[in-house]
Amino acid sequence: MPQKIILDCDPGHDDAIALLLAHGNPEIELLAVTTVVGNQTLDKVTRNALSVARVAGITGVPFAAGCARPLVRTISVAPDIHGESGLDGPALPDPVISLDPRHAVDLIIETIMAHEPGTVTLVPTGGLTNIALAARREPRIVPRVKEVVLMGGGYHGGNWSATSEFNIIIDPEAAHIVFNESWPLTMVGLDLTHQALATPDVVERIRSLGTSPAQFVVELLEFFGGTYLEAQGFEHPPVHDPCAVARVIDPSVMTVRRAPLDVELSGALTLGMTVADFRAPAPDDCTTQVAVALDNEKFWNLIVDALERIGEPVA
Amino acid sequence: MPQKIILDCDPGHDDAIALLLAHGNPEIELLAVTTVVGNQTLDKVTRNALSVARVAGITGVPFAAGCARPLVRTISVAPDIHGESGLDGPALPDPVISLDPRHAVDLIIETIMAHEPGTVTLVPTGGLTNIALAARREPRIVPRVKEVVLMGGGYHGGNWSATSEFNIIIDPEAAHIVFNESWPLTMVGLDLTHQALATPDVVERIRSLGTSPAQFVVELLEFFGGTYLEAQGFEHPPVHDPCAVARVIDPSVMTVRRAPLDVELSGALTLGMTVADFRAPAPDDCTTQVAVALDNEKFWNLIVDALERIGEPVA
Amino acid sequence: MPQKIILDCDPGHDDAIALLLAHGNPEIELLAVTTVVGNQTLDKVTRNALSVARVAGITGVPFAAGCARPLVRTISVAPDIHGESGLDGPALPDPVISLDPRHAVDLIIETIMAHEPGTVTLVPTGGLTNIALAARREPRIVPRVKEVVLMGGGYHGGNWSATSEFNIIIDPEAAHIVFNESWPLTMVGLDLTHQALATPDVVERIRSLGTSPAQFVVELLEFFGGTYLEAQGFEHPPVHDPCAVARVIDPSVMTVRRAPLDVELSGALTLGMTVADFRAPAPDDCTTQVAVALDNEKFWNLIVDALERIGEPVA
Amino acid sequence: MPQKIILDCDPGHDDAIALLLAHGNPEIELLAVTTVVGNQTLDKVTRNALSVARVAGITGVPFAAGCARPLVRTISVAPDIHGESGLDGPALPDPVISLDPRHAVDLIIETIMAHEPGTVTLVPTGGLTNIALAARREPRIVPRVKEVVLMGGGYHGGNWSATSEFNIIIDPEAAHIVFNESWPLTMVGLDLTHQALATPDVVERIRSLGTSPAQFVVELLEFFGGTYLEAQGFEHPPVHDPCAVARVIDPSVMTVRRAPLDVELSGALTLGMTVADFRAPAPDDCTTQVAVALDNEKFWNLIVDALERIGEPVA
Repeated sequence: MPQKIILDCDPGHDDAIALLLAHGNPEIELLAVTTVVGNQTLDKVTRNALSVARVAGITGVPFAAGCARPLVRTISVAPDIHGESGLDGPALPDPVISLDPRHAVDLIIETIMAHEPGTVTLVPTGGLTNIALAARREPRIVPRVKEVVLMGGGYHGGNWSATSEFNIIIDPEAAHIVFNESWPLTMVGLDLTHQALATPDVVERIRSLGTSPAQFVVELLEFFGGTYLEAQGFEHPPVHDPCAVARVIDPSVMTVRRAPLDVELSGALTLGMTVADFRAPAPDDCTTQVAVALDNEKFWNLIVDALERIGEPVA
Repeated sequence: MPQKIILDCDPGHDDAIALLLAHGNPEIELLAVTTVVGNQTLDKVTRNALSVARVAGITGVPFAAGCARPLVRTISVAPDIHGESGLDGPALPDPVISLDPRHAVDLIIETIMAHEPGTVTLVPTGGLTNIALAARREPRIVPRVKEVVLMGGGYHGGNWSATSEFNIIIDPEAAHIVFNESWPLTMVGLDLTHQALATPDVVERIRSLGTSPAQFVVELLEFFGGTYLEAQGFEHPPVHDPCAVARVIDPSVMTVRRAPLDVELSGALTLGMTVADFRAPAPDDCTTQVAVALDNEKFWNLIVDALERIGEPVA
Repeated sequence: MPQKIILDCDPGHDDAIALLLAHGNPEIELLAVTTVVGNQTLDKVTRNALSVARVAGITGVPFAAGCARPLVRTISVAPDIHGESGLDGPALPDPVISLDPRHAVDLIIETIMAHEPGTVTLVPTGGLTNIALAARREPRIVPRVKEVVLMGGGYHGGNWSATSEFNIIIDPEAAHIVFNESWPLTMVGLDLTHQALATPDVVERIRSLGTSPAQFVVELLEFFGGTYLEAQGFEHPPVHDPCAVARVIDPSVMTVRRAPLDVELSGALTLGMTVADFRAPAPDDCTTQVAVALDNEKFWNLIVDALERIGEPVA
Repeated sequence: MPQKIILDCDPGHDDAIALLLAHGNPEIELLAVTTVVGNQTLDKVTRNALSVARVAGITGVPFAAGCARPLVRTISVAPDIHGESGLDGPALPDPVISLDPRHAVDLIIETIMAHEPGTVTLVPTGGLTNIALAARREPRIVPRVKEVVLMGGGYHGGNWSATSEFNIIIDPEAAHIVFNESWPLTMVGLDLTHQALATPDVVERIRSLGTSPAQFVVELLEFFGGTYLEAQGFEHPPVHDPCAVARVIDPSVMTVRRAPLDVELSGALTLGMTVADFRAPAPDDCTTQVAVALDNEKFWNLIVDALERIGEPVA
């Protein structure tokens, strides 16, 4: 039976690929797509999500816009990585589906409450503002969620500061809420995603599929590769967000380690750090774990396979 | 025309008196009463609110329960001041009205959106969790609110720490959100409310009204007076929350001073401090002010007058 | 018997007046003058101290230079208040006395250890770097010091931030050390010193003395008055540092209040705040107090009297 | 030509072995040994240092006691690891040499100033209080020090908290001072020292030397092994402090990586964390580096060799 997920995202190049993977893989049942300020403003990432839906041929899934700003901090976006549109590179088709009128927080709550307890997995790939608000607005969702599998953080270093990753540092209070709730949580952080590099052979493999979604991904990776080289010195760009989706599809795509996790809210150097405590074996009641090692071949096979299945959608 | 208010409270002895004042004074139109964890757990303060409604004879006003915990911090309650029930002292009658099924955050949002812009005043007398969540969940309420007149904080000292007042320190992140929004905000803090002491002559004046609501208030003040003496060394108890309601009824009941305000989120000694900057005249775009000096006679006249008008409700 | 003091200062206009007061008043025995980075760099304030010694006719007192930077933070100076030299305004005569070769920290330690326990009062009127280092380098001085009477801090507001005063915020860790040691400590903060305003009648009274040190003070006050008007909006400049010296000369020049004191080291808004806890009577073992109300007439009489006694030194 | 070092330590089992290594290795010229509060109180670690001197047969080297408490924080010691004496396990012989009368801070300053610039290496293996005080009291030592090679911190985790190592967290302000000075600094942290495990074969190799210093080390390791197993779950105890000395003897004993380093002073979870920024190649003016990988064989050969050279001292 496929895994039911809600993808909460801020497309964003890697979010777009995560959405394609979630749509194309038969092990995933995409219940809803929600957007949140992050890589760019809410308006931009929401429009991007709808454009990607058209590229992928996604229909019948509600898309809803959520929070336009973090809980406490002021807005930070990432044009150095994702460009002014948040999805620079390929031409973006005009959306053909409409936004759901509900706020993302309400859609998340209603979706979880409408399904059997223990069946819905939350897959956040942006800042955690929507998820945190939903948990505070309707605490009954927390024990109903099967798991939170998020892209964000890192136990051994950051990208937006020495210690902190973008998705966490843009709304650390929201992350603190999400990390400290009682749901099972898997952090797919930089430690893992910096292993998911779009090397030339990978790009070539995707290009050779010859479909327009595949070409779209290639153009995303080319743009993203350029900005990652310039902004962070990466030879090949890390493709963060699809890793979280891949984990839901096939847990064996990565190894994980259980450890208590928390989010630093007040450090001068460490604001937004995801602190993992590896000093001792995780206690029995520990509900958090971190992704450690990626099976690279499995991961890229999942991406290629999803694109193959998507084929050439009629739009 | 009366002032339309939403009273967001955590009864709480002084919250109960604030509710009686809001109900009894003809200058106030009570649109809704919402509850939030604070002086006691959400369940207790919500039941207390409904009991006070019966004492006061309030009908036709929606009462809704809100957040059962702060945004980020763990729950702190104040049994040393308000007792185990949150309203120890008088006998509490069983409620006769039912809770509105909506969450307080939704009721707040819907109420504001249903009225003309600039007509609804928010009067929070507890922690600011509900108000903060409403502002983040539906940012369009912010420019529609006429004003936030809150009991909380203090510019020259605290009661729960050397610098910080209970309503702020129990959810400092929520307070940070509320204090930094663009709505006009008046902070009625300890600087003001420690001038609103229930001296024996005041208690006697209320007792002599001879009604059961007046007797209820007397018993509240007697209990509250005992705990304030023991816990904080006050000879006569400060009656905080009605001060905020009184400000809405008659601004001349207190003098105010415009000043930039913010909430400290990371101090080792100062977490939850409401920092006012008095170093220079407030800039023109400053939307915040603090209450400075109370007209004691006017204030207690308002309380007594409200109780007279309430009289002896049929319950 | 006169009070033996070590004046640790960063002249600075008000430091200069403090030095003149300490020299001219017969109740003070000036054991040593030490300098510390603060209003300007160590080199500048040290030269200023020596120049003021010449103006005042001070001989036979060791002057020693101390720390050129704070313990942990980077250097901040105050040219907006004290000018580029740290003592802009009057012409500064070349020094005629030489610096003691010892470091200020060593001079402080040796002076305290050379006198009977309980006889030496420390009067810091700048950042607390020297005093903190001395206490850590030679803890035996702590129980030997009679009292620390310092100018710095404020229990109800700051001047360098909304909550924090210059002398504390430039080296909050040093202040934390000094405030938390076991010696008796009187904080003469902004709450007090903003009552010591050099109004025109005061300036005129000093001018009419007709001596060159008096004229020097008048020119200091005129410059200082201009910068305080421009930088902080004061109609008449507050003359901070002599207040601490005046307290040692005649405790009745100000009322004080015992209260636990501490220094905030980590607040986002409150770094360097001197937190006084007034919630309850100070506990019996509380060794700290704050200055509350100035006897203005007594204070200025002390200043004028000291200048009269200094007269016209031969330099 | 041997490397001139000052060993600043808090023996401490691994400090004791570091002292034996420094004494026994011909590439080290031990200029002075200074002590600081840390693994135990100053009195205890100072006596331990003198006892170890007798075990090792060290004469002609000044030993001086330093700071009995951290700069800002209160004292924390580590009896769970080092026992009540700070050096539990072997019988400790009474010292035969006397303490130098100078304070450690003065001895450090005088020793550095007495040698040619660029010739003295500081090797701190405890908290950094003495070193920080020396740098602030006499800034001219900073450009004269050849290098600081310290045991402390960790770039990927701690032992006293999830992020922080004991030597840093007991005096984070001192560490901040030392890490931010302009001298070259090599941090030999937990990342490295957790590779220096005293496995049974190592213990056996030392035991088989058959001398009393070797037996002393064996008994240290046996006690230390027990507490490390119980307190931190290590199968074999990490022998931290000698790693720093080994680095001075033979840099090839470990690989290092240049990176900007700083110390967190205000995190709720991360106080005392040594933050390394690995996001980009270290800038040209970066003077700090971290130890990464230990050549285990070389390291233990150095230990065994030093013990062989020490042989059986006459005491």
